[in-house]
Amino acid sequence: MRSVKKEIRIVGFDDSPFIPRTKGRVPVVGVVFRGGDYMDGAFKTEVSIDGMDSTNILIKLLNKSRHKEQLRIIMLKGITFGGFNMVDISKLYEETKLPVIVVNRKKPDLKKIKRALKHFNDFKKRWECVEHAGKIHKMRIEKNKNIYYQFKGLAQSEVEKLIKLTCTRSLLPEPLRIAHLIASALIKGESGGRA
Amino acid sequence: MRSVKKEIRIVGFDDSPFIPRTKGRVPVVGVVFRGGDYMDGAFKTEVSIDGMDSTNILIKLLNKSRHKEQLRIIMLKGITFGGFNMVDISKLYEETKLPVIVVNRKKPDLKKIKRALKHFNDFKKRWECVEHAGKIHKMRIEKNKNIYYQFKGLAQSEVEKLIKLTCTRSLLPEPLRIAHLIASALIKGESGGRA
Repeated sequence: MRSVKKEIRIVGFDDSPFIPRTKGRVPVVGVVFRGGDYMDGAFKTEVSIDGMDSTNILIKLLNKSRHKEQLRIIMLKGITFGGFNMVDISKLYEETKLPVIVVNRKKPDLKKIKRALKHFNDFKKRWECVEHAGKIHKMRIEKNKNIYYQFKGLAQSEVEKLIKLTCTRSLLPEPLRIAHLIASALIKGESGGRA
Repeated sequence: MRSVKKEIRIVGFDDSPFIPRTKGRVPVVGVVFRGGDYMDGAFKTEVSIDGMDSTNILIKLLNKSRHKEQLRIIMLKGITFGGFNMVDISKLYEETKLPVIVVNRKKPDLKKIKRALKHFNDFKKRWECVEHAGKIHKMRIEKNKNIYYQFKGLAQSEVEKLIKLTCTRSLLPEPLRIAHLIASALIKGESGGRA
């Protein structure tokens, strides 16, 4: 990515709400945006609750997609989908060749995450995903309003430009705000409060 | 509705693709837009293929919704959902108190529709929905590009203003373009070509 174009195609993924500690699969919605401007496409897939299939599912979904050639960036709302189904953003970047930006509204509490992951037999593999997501950076969007981001495959200055470009309607990049609205409507019948 | 405000809340509904002459239910997606500008919420429900439940399902969905108080207009991509599951826009308007605008990219072929509806035992009830949708009007969006609309509960001049306000990215009003993208992704895994 040389410079940030205003109409750069970004896909943002978020998962649907679900009842914790249940079994089964959870919808994951992807939204393709042109910059922060307007929606150009959508994805829908599913990952297993507390499974470890989300990285591979996203890789396959994107690599076989008709949108792939236009896409330049992946955004994720956090690195966990369907509970503790961890996305390995290093692998996601390597296998799609698309840089990844992870955005959180709250600072992820790594101690708490570590404690929760310790309950899984494959703790080591899951914790690796946390490590692969890299350092957590803070960015001020408005006065007293911060978001937290991690990234892979692009320069930090570009990440911040992309977040600024896409946070046009809220404290979340548009692809993630819209993915959240849709993912929540899929389960609840209509979208709820703020993302 | 006194005048058309730029940020007027509109909900647009479209159904997912399905295999004709099969049984079952089809997803219907609703998208809440502020004017032609940006998305504010989403709905997801289902109607039965070739059933007659779509009018009541939309009425219930809207009347119990947290978005209801803000909503001013309903837009539908055609009056048939899930095959020949007909929406009665008179009833939809009366029971939600929200004016309804139906938009089609092609002029509905009423003769063809009548022929198809004749296969149903309740032909009379289904044909009534076609009649309740009223006269089909043509509107030019761009040079040589027309859309067709019907409406209930507002003045024709307001309908045309609303279509102009919302056709910002294509020949379809934004709430319908986006509802189509999402509805198609729900079944196919990703959105396809143009709405």
